[in-house]
Amino acid sequence: MSLWDINKIKYEGTKDLKSGDFFQYYNPDEMIGGKKMRDWLRFSVAYWHTFDQRLVDPFGDGTAIRPYDKYSDPMDQALAKVDYAFEFYDKLGVDYLAFHDRDLAPEGDTLRETNKNLDKVVDKIVENQKTSGMKVLWNTSNMFTNPRFVAGAGTSPYADIFAYSAAQLKHSLEIGKRVGSENYVFWGGREGYESLWNTDMKLEQEHAAKLFHMAKDYADEIGFDAQMLLEPKPKEPMTHQYDFDAATTIAFMKEYGLDKDFKLNLEGNHANLAGHTYQHEIRVARDAGMLGSLDANQGDKLIGWDIDEFPSDLYEAVGAMYEVVEAGGIGPHGGLNFDSKPRRSSFDANDLFYSHIVGMDTFAAGLRVANKMKEDGVLENLVADRYSSYKSGIGADIESGKADIKTLEDYSLDKTQKDLRDATSSDHLERVKDTINHYIIDTL
Amino acid sequence: MSLWDINKIKYEGTKDLKSGDFFQYYNPDEMIGGKKMRDWLRFSVAYWHTFDQRLVDPFGDGTAIRPYDKYSDPMDQALAKVDYAFEFYDKLGVDYLAFHDRDLAPEGDTLRETNKNLDKVVDKIVENQKTSGMKVLWNTSNMFTNPRFVAGAGTSPYADIFAYSAAQLKHSLEIGKRVGSENYVFWGGREGYESLWNTDMKLEQEHAAKLFHMAKDYADEIGFDAQMLLEPKPKEPMTHQYDFDAATTIAFMKEYGLDKDFKLNLEGNHANLAGHTYQHEIRVARDAGMLGSLDANQGDKLIGWDIDEFPSDLYEAVGAMYEVVEAGGIGPHGGLNFDSKPRRSSFDANDLFYSHIVGMDTFAAGLRVANKMKEDGVLENLVADRYSSYKSGIGADIESGKADIKTLEDYSLDKTQKDLRDATSSDHLERVKDTINHYIIDTL
Amino acid sequence: MSLWDINKIKYEGTKDLKSGDFFQYYNPDEMIGGKKMRDWLRFSVAYWHTFDQRLVDPFGDGTAIRPYDKYSDPMDQALAKVDYAFEFYDKLGVDYLAFHDRDLAPEGDTLRETNKNLDKVVDKIVENQKTSGMKVLWNTSNMFTNPRFVAGAGTSPYADIFAYSAAQLKHSLEIGKRVGSENYVFWGGREGYESLWNTDMKLEQEHAAKLFHMAKDYADEIGFDAQMLLEPKPKEPMTHQYDFDAATTIAFMKEYGLDKDFKLNLEGNHANLAGHTYQHEIRVARDAGMLGSLDANQGDKLIGWDIDEFPSDLYEAVGAMYEVVEAGGIGPHGGLNFDSKPRRSSFDANDLFYSHIVGMDTFAAGLRVANKMKEDGVLENLVADRYSSYKSGIGADIESGKADIKTLEDYSLDKTQKDLRDATSSDHLERVKDTINHYIIDTL
Amino acid sequence: MSLWDINKIKYEGTKDLKSGDFFQYYNPDEMIGGKKMRDWLRFSVAYWHTFDQRLVDPFGDGTAIRPYDKYSDPMDQALAKVDYAFEFYDKLGVDYLAFHDRDLAPEGDTLRETNKNLDKVVDKIVENQKTSGMKVLWNTSNMFTNPRFVAGAGTSPYADIFAYSAAQLKHSLEIGKRVGSENYVFWGGREGYESLWNTDMKLEQEHAAKLFHMAKDYADEIGFDAQMLLEPKPKEPMTHQYDFDAATTIAFMKEYGLDKDFKLNLEGNHANLAGHTYQHEIRVARDAGMLGSLDANQGDKLIGWDIDEFPSDLYEAVGAMYEVVEAGGIGPHGGLNFDSKPRRSSFDANDLFYSHIVGMDTFAAGLRVANKMKEDGVLENLVADRYSSYKSGIGADIESGKADIKTLEDYSLDKTQKDLRDATSSDHLERVKDTINHYIIDTL
Repeated sequence: MSLWDINKIKYEGTKDLKSGDFFQYYNPDEMIGGKKMRDWLRFSVAYWHTFDQRLVDPFGDGTAIRPYDKYSDPMDQALAKVDYAFEFYDKLGVDYLAFHDRDLAPEGDTLRETNKNLDKVVDKIVENQKTSGMKVLWNTSNMFTNPRFVAGAGTSPYADIFAYSAAQLKHSLEIGKRVGSENYVFWGGREGYESLWNTDMKLEQEHAAKLFHMAKDYADEIGFDAQMLLEPKPKEPMTHQYDFDAATTIAFMKEYGLDKDFKLNLEGNHANLAGHTYQHEIRVARDAGMLGSLDANQGDKLIGWDIDEFPSDLYEAVGAMYEVVEAGGIGPHGGLNFDSKPRRSSFDANDLFYSHIVGMDTFAAGLRVANKMKEDGVLENLVADRYSSYKSGIGADIESGKADIKTLEDYSLDKTQKDLRDATSSDHLERVKDTINHYIIDTL
Repeated sequence: MSLWDINKIKYEGTKDLKSGDFFQYYNPDEMIGGKKMRDWLRFSVAYWHTFDQRLVDPFGDGTAIRPYDKYSDPMDQALAKVDYAFEFYDKLGVDYLAFHDRDLAPEGDTLRETNKNLDKVVDKIVENQKTSGMKVLWNTSNMFTNPRFVAGAGTSPYADIFAYSAAQLKHSLEIGKRVGSENYVFWGGREGYESLWNTDMKLEQEHAAKLFHMAKDYADEIGFDAQMLLEPKPKEPMTHQYDFDAATTIAFMKEYGLDKDFKLNLEGNHANLAGHTYQHEIRVARDAGMLGSLDANQGDKLIGWDIDEFPSDLYEAVGAMYEVVEAGGIGPHGGLNFDSKPRRSSFDANDLFYSHIVGMDTFAAGLRVANKMKEDGVLENLVADRYSSYKSGIGADIESGKADIKTLEDYSLDKTQKDLRDATSSDHLERVKDTINHYIIDTL
Repeated sequence: MSLWDINKIKYEGTKDLKSGDFFQYYNPDEMIGGKKMRDWLRFSVAYWHTFDQRLVDPFGDGTAIRPYDKYSDPMDQALAKVDYAFEFYDKLGVDYLAFHDRDLAPEGDTLRETNKNLDKVVDKIVENQKTSGMKVLWNTSNMFTNPRFVAGAGTSPYADIFAYSAAQLKHSLEIGKRVGSENYVFWGGREGYESLWNTDMKLEQEHAAKLFHMAKDYADEIGFDAQMLLEPKPKEPMTHQYDFDAATTIAFMKEYGLDKDFKLNLEGNHANLAGHTYQHEIRVARDAGMLGSLDANQGDKLIGWDIDEFPSDLYEAVGAMYEVVEAGGIGPHGGLNFDSKPRRSSFDANDLFYSHIVGMDTFAAGLRVANKMKEDGVLENLVADRYSSYKSGIGADIESGKADIKTLEDYSLDKTQKDLRDATSSDHLERVKDTINHYIIDTL
Repeated sequence: MSLWDINKIKYEGTKDLKSGDFFQYYNPDEMIGGKKMRDWLRFSVAYWHTFDQRLVDPFGDGTAIRPYDKYSDPMDQALAKVDYAFEFYDKLGVDYLAFHDRDLAPEGDTLRETNKNLDKVVDKIVENQKTSGMKVLWNTSNMFTNPRFVAGAGTSPYADIFAYSAAQLKHSLEIGKRVGSENYVFWGGREGYESLWNTDMKLEQEHAAKLFHMAKDYADEIGFDAQMLLEPKPKEPMTHQYDFDAATTIAFMKEYGLDKDFKLNLEGNHANLAGHTYQHEIRVARDAGMLGSLDANQGDKLIGWDIDEFPSDLYEAVGAMYEVVEAGGIGPHGGLNFDSKPRRSSFDANDLFYSHIVGMDTFAAGLRVANKMKEDGVLENLVADRYSSYKSGIGADIESGKADIKTLEDYSLDKTQKDLRDATSSDHLERVKDTINHYIIDTL
């Protein structure tokens, strides 16, 4: 049986692409830097964008029609969609999926009914996992779409909404255990403010932390040992979101005692919206030992909202994978989840395949280039050389604490302008960028 | 003797302004909210912008000619400038000044010579302080202009530059003690990176922290009890600066054990460059107990670089002063330093007066409005009401820790969609904004 | 009969507002600058935001429930909504409405069916106009929501979609004639590109112009004498929209011979997204004689997408109304249409009233301030003075064409640096901004 | 004699680069698409950035020391610099240079003295041109740095400044003739406003046009047949510049009758500051037949000011060169002028070579990829196919004008939702981006 028409998605006969195979750079079982590519990358398909999303935007209805739209009853459709999803994973050749609770099944009028709907779909997912070997990279709870979350979930000013959020979360954690999620993610899309004038920012953050602690405690209680992750985004839909960027979110975790149990899930487009590169955010997390997982997508830096484009920019992929290679992997249990959607004009079912293929190949290419640079030590040597003055002499004394402000004054007081200029070196950044270009061209 | 021609700066006879007096809203000795206005605001004039700056920009030479330009010898000019400065303070009616070490005197070829130049000018400042009663809101060390700081001061990859920075700082702290600075500020304009590819971000931040600790230790040693402050800015001149915004800088302080001794100096234009409002940054600092002092200026949110405009936007001033009034003051020793310059086309000496007057009056207006809103409790009541569900019932149980995830599930499981919607309320934000407009119009 | 509960929307008893009346500054029949306020402002309510919109955002379902949601049949609801709308206009005290064709009635499977649905609702609107005296500021055609417009309407690469767009437009123009629209607006939300790589930009713009010509020709043919308007927006939903800003759109009109028959409809939030102030866009249009009408709303300059907030910023309203007062009015038939929606958290029906009241009062305040500045000649004098050197001497020779490049060389060759500096003057911009503050405070 | 130490700039022995040669992709005399690479690219070195600039930024003094800094007399240095420049051109292997008048020689107190200084340096340049064969891609007049231009040159409110600008321009055109400039460029860095409140935008634009006409008339008079060019930039240093972007500048030219004689000089970083890609700006110019020349540099889309980085981004170079290849060349006389500077940390003299090499190689790579895509017809076919519905049937009737709004209504009235959806096609944008990646990797 074939639900998705595989023949159509072959690239064969298209002279604009390289070969009859899907992938140019992704070769799952090839060893690279001591690990299989699939284990470095751990690609995951996002249920919401790939199976639920119909490519709406704020000014337009969905352009996509999916084969399971023939099921008019929401539960029938939800159940049928599971088969489509698992065939998709199989044909694409990924090992992981990711989902929000509300991606899977329609809400009922009460949480009890909603949970019942959800459990039926999860039953089917668990069955499919057994036969397919598919794993769940992470699951999460959608606490932002329903109007009740208008002013937040954990940070809602309304106690009943906090209560409901905890209850929804409890069930979502139970599902995580059932499907064996390797991580559990929190994206606080409504955890922020529309206006400062009516917001008690401190109280709201305390409440958020309280909810995260409840979640972790309950996960421990039921033996759900997923890595907990927070996902930063600076704004949209809110004017300001508390998990603004990696640095802010790590600070929040430390402030509220969450840093032992939580790490970060980082996204490229969110990084840009905060004024950062994707690589910067991953570096911040890596330096802090807080790199958990990655949402693979790309933004358009000239555009001020979240576009969740499938990754195709080789520079961004090399930058991200360089950090990953340096870190030895994407967090303890992390992977690359495509929090990405085809452009609204790529509305064919086949575009779901094409776009994942481009995304996977782009990151596989990034891995190859980053690994080659690592093997050659090109950037490590450059960095080691640049900071080498701290290895001996006054630099070593500074590092060891032997030098204090007075010895440093003595050391410096009669150095001339020229002496001090000569203590610095050009860093030849244009050559560094050229080097990266050459690594991309020559490795691929 | 009159160095600046006071007659020219009177607003008399100009039909576009209100009165023959300088100020419409600033009345230094008027009591407001239990304190004199001068004590709430503690206005400070920035030596660099007001006395050194000639209104250059990256595409143009300075447009301003200052009366002390007649002194061609740099030291003669530096000494003469002190007289101009103190007459300016006197005529304007401010109580505080602020300066970088390099604002005051020209550099020599060595730090020893530079310090000697500097000490002569500081001697003259100290004399002038005695006769005038002028105080120093803060001093700081310019460790970003000289080419030696091309890759940072405390974060320089070159140990000799770190050493020099410590030495420069030592003398600057000694000056702080001599002039009785109430605060000591660090703006890390070069403490960041141009490119991630050649940067060891973690090592650089450790070095920065090391330098801050040295500074604090030495200040303690010499009995210089100023409040230490870090000033965030996200980028410019660097691609990324480590003290990105209030949240990031507080996190840095905590990470490196600086949070007991350091607080924040926050600027409006820097806030905007980080994607925040000025009020947001002050709120973050206030909530963390880290509000130290304020750099008063405004940006243009449609412009992507630092313009350091004198404040004239009443909304921004009300927002900033609302946070200050709620905090009971601007930090332990803070004030409003005009890190502001006249527009390049406002190149008359008189514009230095005009622009400070506008800035002072704008913040005085902000104080009056914020204080009236505080007295009426208008926003406090609104906020209290908005979060009132946490005062009793399930909300109180959440706050007290009595409720856990299971009791919250029991509480929520059978609530209907409508029940939960009804638990939320409209926050009527349009009315809130209207209310603020009315407070501005009616109070002023 | 009362559909909307008027008692609830009284501001009485709310100590945060000024009076029991709706308006503080808007007094429709008061004469100001020789015209009634209502004739300067010609406020219009936008059908889509006020009656159709349920306050969705890309991450959340609608929070608002409207009283006519009790009608489950789409046509029943569409017809009932007309009564709600007209009562709303009456209670609010506006004279104009504006709508897209698709705001009014549900689409059928064919255009024939859709038109039939639409005509029924228009019949009812026409009846209501007779009894109420309500006028239509403008109508327009929604050619962006339906998936068929995925790649544009007039600029679609698919000829059938161009054909359909012309057909849809034809009926919409006929409706415009029936309801007596004073203007007819085109917002080209899909007329642009997602990617340049697959776009023939020139051909697409030719097609757009062709459609505009067809529309104007047909309007003439049926005697529909509305002013035709194009509405610029730089991007969102597309990566680039052809009607980027006022200057670009005027250029497009001139290129394709549309400038005699078309003018501009300008919006504040769109201006910001293009990197401009609202006032700038209006100035560009005014200078070109192309000011048609205004969409009244405001953006958040720190936010990169269209938020369509109700106007409350007095500076923006003063800036916009200053241009209008200088132009003698908003175009030949223009008004202020609130292309604005309450914040998603202002979901009560009453917020529809509150938010319009704030918007109307803000623009009425802007008019009062602008008119006072005009009466006092404060800015006109300042500008006249600034450019006065062109009134005599070499300046007059330049203006008259008497001076050529050689006489100007002769005139300039021996002028010194100082001579030339002295030919310029400080423009005291800080005082100008202070003056505007004082006009706001003193006029209101 | 060797002024610049050529040995140091060899890439030999550096394992991070490809070969002992400078260039990997630039091979000047290689034929590609029917022309020599050197004739496609016509690389030009910018006098200001390469020989005058010392790598200052708004917060830091210049980091670079140049070998001719040993000449303390400004005229001695100016003359010596010519030798350094010509040796640089020779060693780098470029054919063109570009300069502002004020780049070459110091200003005197009067224009007469300034011209005299300038003529001496131009004499030497002309001599050097004879021996070297070097050509001038364009010259221009710096009418933005001196304080006299504080409020503009052609748009100055002060008639004496307009007069001076015309006079300065006259001499600059004469120089253009002497050196045989192929183009003459105007960048209106001060032609805009700081504030709308005191600006007569329309009058200022009329004055700008008047000056451009004077310049063209005089060029004709003296037989200087360079292509005249305007260079857009949206803002910086001014709040708003009149030549905002390509579309706005073309509109200005048409409005004032300049479009026959002027074309555009387009820059990548300026494009980004206006919210556009470089490719977009070139496309706009190409479609209008207004592509004159290119300033080759790149911005950082996360940074809001002009960084003038040397181009290294292959995507941008491919996008730009694709437009050039489609246009058959860069305008009638255009080339690629590096309006670029090394990063402030690349302060060695050698970095001047390195950075040009990277820039030249990047654009040469872009040319190779664009030419290959053109040869394969890959994008042309894709575009032709996408718009093919206009070649026959109703589409052809639309194009020919045979179809009017009524025939289009007849054609469309009974088409179903499905019919119309089926008239559109997915554009598979993700595959298009993948295709471009493969062309980059496979061609280089």
